[in-house]
Amino acid sequence: MDVPCCTALNPIRETKVNDGERLTFEKSMLQPAVAMKVGVLFSGGPAPGGHAFLYGLGKALFEIHDKIELLGFLEGAKGLIGCNFMKLDMKTLAAYESLGGFHLLGTSRKKIEDPDDFAKIEEVILKLGLSAIVFVGGDDTHTNAYHLGKYLEKKMLPTTIVAAPKTIDGDVKSQDIKQSFGFDTATRVYSELIGNLGTDLLSTKKYWHFVRLMGRKASHVTLECALQTEPNLALISEEVEREKMTLNSLVDHIVELVIERKKVKKPYGLVLIPEGLIEFIPEMKELLGELNRLLAAGKDAASLSEKSRAVFDLLPPAFQRELQSERDSHGNIGLSHIKTEELLKEIVMERLTREGQNGEISILGHFYGYEGRCSPPSDFDRIYCTNLGRVAAALVYHRKSLTVAALDRLEESPVNWQPVGAFMEKAMGVEMRSGKEKRVVQKALVDLKGKPFQHFASKRKQARLADRYSAPGPMQLGFFSKVQITKTLELELQ
Amino acid sequence: MDVPCCTALNPIRETKVNDGERLTFEKSMLQPAVAMKVGVLFSGGPAPGGHAFLYGLGKALFEIHDKIELLGFLEGAKGLIGCNFMKLDMKTLAAYESLGGFHLLGTSRKKIEDPDDFAKIEEVILKLGLSAIVFVGGDDTHTNAYHLGKYLEKKMLPTTIVAAPKTIDGDVKSQDIKQSFGFDTATRVYSELIGNLGTDLLSTKKYWHFVRLMGRKASHVTLECALQTEPNLALISEEVEREKMTLNSLVDHIVELVIERKKVKKPYGLVLIPEGLIEFIPEMKELLGELNRLLAAGKDAASLSEKSRAVFDLLPPAFQRELQSERDSHGNIGLSHIKTEELLKEIVMERLTREGQNGEISILGHFYGYEGRCSPPSDFDRIYCTNLGRVAAALVYHRKSLTVAALDRLEESPVNWQPVGAFMEKAMGVEMRSGKEKRVVQKALVDLKGKPFQHFASKRKQARLADRYSAPGPMQLGFFSKVQITKTLELELQ
Repeated sequence: MDVPCCTALNPIRETKVNDGERLTFEKSMLQPAVAMKVGVLFSGGPAPGGHAFLYGLGKALFEIHDKIELLGFLEGAKGLIGCNFMKLDMKTLAAYESLGGFHLLGTSRKKIEDPDDFAKIEEVILKLGLSAIVFVGGDDTHTNAYHLGKYLEKKMLPTTIVAAPKTIDGDVKSQDIKQSFGFDTATRVYSELIGNLGTDLLSTKKYWHFVRLMGRKASHVTLECALQTEPNLALISEEVEREKMTLNSLVDHIVELVIERKKVKKPYGLVLIPEGLIEFIPEMKELLGELNRLLAAGKDAASLSEKSRAVFDLLPPAFQRELQSERDSHGNIGLSHIKTEELLKEIVMERLTREGQNGEISILGHFYGYEGRCSPPSDFDRIYCTNLGRVAAALVYHRKSLTVAALDRLEESPVNWQPVGAFMEKAMGVEMRSGKEKRVVQKALVDLKGKPFQHFASKRKQARLADRYSAPGPMQLGFFSKVQITKTLELELQ
Repeated sequence: MDVPCCTALNPIRETKVNDGERLTFEKSMLQPAVAMKVGVLFSGGPAPGGHAFLYGLGKALFEIHDKIELLGFLEGAKGLIGCNFMKLDMKTLAAYESLGGFHLLGTSRKKIEDPDDFAKIEEVILKLGLSAIVFVGGDDTHTNAYHLGKYLEKKMLPTTIVAAPKTIDGDVKSQDIKQSFGFDTATRVYSELIGNLGTDLLSTKKYWHFVRLMGRKASHVTLECALQTEPNLALISEEVEREKMTLNSLVDHIVELVIERKKVKKPYGLVLIPEGLIEFIPEMKELLGELNRLLAAGKDAASLSEKSRAVFDLLPPAFQRELQSERDSHGNIGLSHIKTEELLKEIVMERLTREGQNGEISILGHFYGYEGRCSPPSDFDRIYCTNLGRVAAALVYHRKSLTVAALDRLEESPVNWQPVGAFMEKAMGVEMRSGKEKRVVQKALVDLKGKPFQHFASKRKQARLADRYSAPGPMQLGFFSKVQITKTLELELQ
C-alpha cells in the first residue's frame, strides 16, 4: 500500500523553491540533477515515524539521481563525529518504513558542543564529501544542527544542514511547524490506555487512577490525551505555573475533587498528570534549585532556606530521600524518574485520611511513556513522515541550509499538504546553559490562550462530576484515505 | 458488519442437544418455542467481550420467541440478591456490543455465600418467575453459580443455571473450555506495549524494563505475552514453585542475565513478571502465612520464626513496612498492590551494586493490568463472546442447568466452531476456604508439560542474549474473515 504524497513535490526535480518568511515549493521547470552524498541521523529519544522519514527522504533523493548516496550515521551525533555509518538502499528502507523505533540507525543524546566535536565533523564532511546532513531530532538537536550550520558557513563549507521536527512531546512547534512527528502516535497509544481505564471505572466504580504522561518540559501530551479521553481532571503544567500554584493548593484541588465525587457516590476517578509537573510549581522549582546547589556543595536538605524547608517537609519521606540521592548525568537531581503520580497519591491519601474521607478511596498510579514513543506509527505519522522526508530531500536538493522540513495545510488531504522549509533562525532564543548564555531553539509550551487549551478549559467543569470518559480504542492502521489528525491540531487549524 | 456465527446453532430452535461427557449440539427438528424470563449478570473484574456476550445471548433468545424477556441484574450478585435489574432490548445490546468494559450492567465481587443470600435469590426467582440465570464470571462466580444451582435443585425449583467462562487471567480452562474470554484481548493489549518497549531497547540500547502483568493465581498471561513478544526473560510462577526457587535464587537468575548481557555490550533487557509471583516462591508463601497469623494475633514481624525472619530480612525496608500495613478485605496481607517489579528491581540493583556491576544499568518497572481488562474486544473475543452468548441461550432453552457455555474447534473458521455445554460438576474440587473444606471450581494453572510452556522453554535460552523482541503493534479490528487466536491456543490445538 503506497503512502499518499503531497503533489507539490511530485516529482522533486520539477519543484521550485520560493523564499520569504519561510520556504514554499511550486512546480516549475526541470532542474538539473546532481550526484551527491547525503548524511542523515536520529538524535534523542525515539519517535514513531522515524523510519518512514528515512524512507521518504531516500525515495525522493534516489528519484533525483540514482547516483545519490544516502549515509545513515549510527547512534546519532556519535556516529557523525566518529564517522560510523551505513549506506542506505531502498530495499532496507522499505523493510523498516512502517516500523516504530529508531533501530535501523540507533540514536543517542550526544550533543555537538565541544570545539573538538565541530572539528571532527568537519573532517568527516571533507573525508566523505558530504553535500548535506539531515538531523532528525527535537529542539536540542535543532540547536546542535544550527550551530554546526553556522560553523560550516564560517568555514565556507557548502554542506547543507536540514532538520526534521521529531518529538513525541509536541514541543517543537511554531507558525511554520504545525506539529512534531511522533506526537500523533504517542498520544493515541496513551489515549487508548487512558480510555480503557475510564471504561474500567464505569464498570467497577472503584479506584482513582493517577496517570503520569511523558513530556517533561511541556504539557501538550497531557492536553491532547485529555481532549481525547475526557478525564475528571488533567493538570497542565503551564497553567500551574501561571497560577503560581503551590504543592498544597494543587493537593487541595485534587482532594476537593475526590470528596466532591464521593458525595455523589462516585468513589473513583481519572486524573492526568504531566511528567514535568513538579518543576512548574514555583516553590518546588525553587526548592529543587536550592537542593541542587546544596548537594553540589556537599551539603544536604538540612541547610535549606526556611521557605524551601517548609515545602520539603510536605514531601513524603521516600521522596525526600529520593531527591537527595538520584542524580542525572549533569549532577542535577534526577527528576525524570521521580514518580509524581506516587507523590501526589501519597500526599492526597494522607490528607484524605486526616480529614476522615479516605473510606472507599484507593489510588493507583500509572506512567505511560516508553510504550508510546516506540509504537509503530499511526497513519498520520507514517504519511506525515514520508512527506517530511520528501520535503527534506527537496531542501537538500535546493541547498537550503539551516532549515527545518515542515508541512502546512494539514487539515486537508495529504496530496494537498503544502511543503515548507522553516528557517531555524526564527526559532532561536537565548537561554542560560551551564551558567552561560547560549542561542538555542526554544521549546513551544502549551499556549494557554490557544484554542486547544481554551476548548479543554471550557469543558473541564462538566468533566469533574459527569463520567464523560471517552475510549478511542486501539489505533487502526492502513486507512490512508481518511487520515485523522490530533484534536490539538484540529482545533488549531480551525 | 455482522459477526460470524457457528452454524450448528443457527437457528437455535432447530438444534438438538446430545448428552455425554459434555453437551454438544446438532441440527434436528424444530422445537416448540416458549416465552420465558432469563436473568444475566456480570461478576468480578471486567473482561473484553462481556457486552458481545450479552448481545449474542439476547439475539439468540429473541430469535426463539419474541416474548422472551432478558433481565440484566446490576452490579453482579448484588443486583440479583437485591432484585435490581434492567430489561434488555436489542437496540441497547447492539449499541454496546463492540464496547469494552461491563458498564451496561456494572459488576461486583459480591459472592453468594450466606444462607441469607440463597434465600433472597430464591425469593427473587419466584417473584420474577425466572426460568434461567446466566452468570458471566470466573472460577469464583462459577462456584457461586454451582452452589446456587444445587440449592435450587434441592428446593425443586426448575430455574436453569448457566455460566460463561470469563477472565483475562485465562485460568478458567479445561478439556471442554478451551479459553476464557478476555484473555485474547488483554494479552494483545499487553503485548502491544511490551513489544513497543522491545523496540525502544533496540533503538536506545538502555534500560532494563521489568514488566509485571495482571493475573495473580496463574501465569497464562505472562506466558502468552512471552510467546508474542520474546523478552529476554519471563518468569512463570508455576515453574518457580515446581523448582522450589527462593527469592535469592530468583534474584541470582536475573542478576546473572544482566551481567551476561552487559558482557556482550547489552546493558538493557526485557523481563516479564507474573503478578502473583511472590506467592509461588515457597519460602515467601510461608513467610506470608506466618505474617498473616501474627498480624491477626496483634503481633508483628519481630515474632517471625528464624527461617521466615531470614527471608523477611532480604526485603527492602519499604516492602517490609508494606507487608505489615496493607490488608485486603479479608484481613489478609494485601498482595494485589505489592509491586513485585519494584521489589525485584531494588534487590537486583542492590546486588549489582555490591558486585560492582551496576554501571550503565538502570531498571524501570511497569505494571499492565487495568489497561487491558477494559479494552474493546479483539476480533476473536468479539466473535467468541457473541457465539458463547448463543451457546448460553441454547443451554437455557434446552434447560441444561449447571453447565458452562463453551466452544470447540477454535482452530477452524467461526462458522465451524462446535458449541459445547461443559458440566460444572467436572471442574469441581475441594479447597480450604476460611478454615473449612468447600467444593469450588478449580483454577487451571499453567501446565508445565503442555505445549505452550514447552515451546516457550525450548526458545528461551536463545532469547537471553539475542534481541528477538517482537512487536505485534496495536490490535487491528474488524477483520472477521481472518481471525487470529492466541499463541497459547494455537499451540494447544495443534
